[in-house]
Amino acid sequence: MDSTRESFAPTARTRLRRLPARGSYDRAVVAAILDEALMCHVGFVGEDGQPYVIPTIHARLGDQLLFHGARAGRLLRALAGPVCVTVTLVDGLVLARSAFHHSMNYRSVVVLGVAEEVTDPERKRRALEAIVEHVAPGRSAIARAPNDKELAATRVMAVTLDEVSAKIRTGPPIDDEEDLGYPCWAGIVPLRSVPGEPVATAGLAPGLAAPDRASFVRGEHG
Amino acid sequence: MDSTRESFAPTARTRLRRLPARGSYDRAVVAAILDEALMCHVGFVGEDGQPYVIPTIHARLGDQLLFHGARAGRLLRALAGPVCVTVTLVDGLVLARSAFHHSMNYRSVVVLGVAEEVTDPERKRRALEAIVEHVAPGRSAIARAPNDKELAATRVMAVTLDEVSAKIRTGPPIDDEEDLGYPCWAGIVPLRSVPGEPVATAGLAPGLAAPDRASFVRGEHG
Repeated sequence: MDSTRESFAPTARTRLRRLPARGSYDRAVVAAILDEALMCHVGFVGEDGQPYVIPTIHARLGDQLLFHGARAGRLLRALAGPVCVTVTLVDGLVLARSAFHHSMNYRSVVVLGVAEEVTDPERKRRALEAIVEHVAPGRSAIARAPNDKELAATRVMAVTLDEVSAKIRTGPPIDDEEDLGYPCWAGIVPLRSVPGEPVATAGLAPGLAAPDRASFVRGEHG
Repeated sequence: MDSTRESFAPTARTRLRRLPARGSYDRAVVAAILDEALMCHVGFVGEDGQPYVIPTIHARLGDQLLFHGARAGRLLRALAGPVCVTVTLVDGLVLARSAFHHSMNYRSVVVLGVAEEVTDPERKRRALEAIVEHVAPGRSAIARAPNDKELAATRVMAVTLDEVSAKIRTGPPIDDEEDLGYPCWAGIVPLRSVPGEPVATAGLAPGLAAPDRASFVRGEHG
């Protein structure tokens, strides 16, 4: 591993064999997808050999992918072995003239590795802050910070970004030559995750401004 | 398995231990989440014991969860062992007064089972139609249907819905009593996946009407 390289080295497990043009190992591309995605799916293998896939919030700090959970929960106790963390952004539906060539435009990242618990108190605080900031920018400065009891009840796990690939599909449908005149509309339906207006909870102290809806728009913060 | 029951029987692997009030085993609840979710994440274990989590489109037909892929791809060849299929709908950000109680409103389903290939030609055609209809309702009637060569190049896998749980969080943030006066705005930021206006591909035969944007709004088709 050399995190100063601008690309991840593909391995036998991350190299895209089918449609390799859709693959990317570029660190900036991977980072942008991980940062835009609100949440990830963590895969691990249970003692019985059963795979489990659990959704959770994450954050990226440099070359570390971070997620957290309750110390009492099953998820983090089961993470002793290898993990796979996958994030997927769906950008649009691709409607081709033929059913066969229907597809989606998407950007996904697959991270293979081992999840290590973050135990150093300062690193753990920074990781939890990063997770809150990932979901709601600016929020960790105004919310009540975690106390020692809350920190003890929370586990933070880090996976080093090393064996990583991105997969991206963009653009219009690609129909076979002989279908180009087929009388069926074809094109793209863009899809976006859109935040609504914030809804205050009951019993809020008076005079507190709601956060700006625009601050929750993802993928446009640069 | 008794698919006439209205609920799935929780197993040691699907019973929610932490926050059991968020769990549901109700067939109608599970079906609604699977149907609203555009795509799923499929987890399986590679020969080397490494878990993999791959995003893909799915459909539900009765008590079968269906997905498909290229016969030449790695995904479907690796599915000989147990799988976990997870779908997650993110409904909103939950901003509490304390960083610790930040959360998300979501609806997720975890399906444990075995993926069996659908080889019967008629069943396979119906499954592929269901997958197209799941993504783009009405589309399979107007797009060119798959020919024999395309059918042969595609594998369809089915997982019977049997060992299944849903997990749902709704409602406002739940802060500790002593934080209720803390001077930090708290509430919900709703999130929705929204389709944009369809964009026609170049070279379309003249006179074809674009599909109605509203037909791609998920979770409101009833």
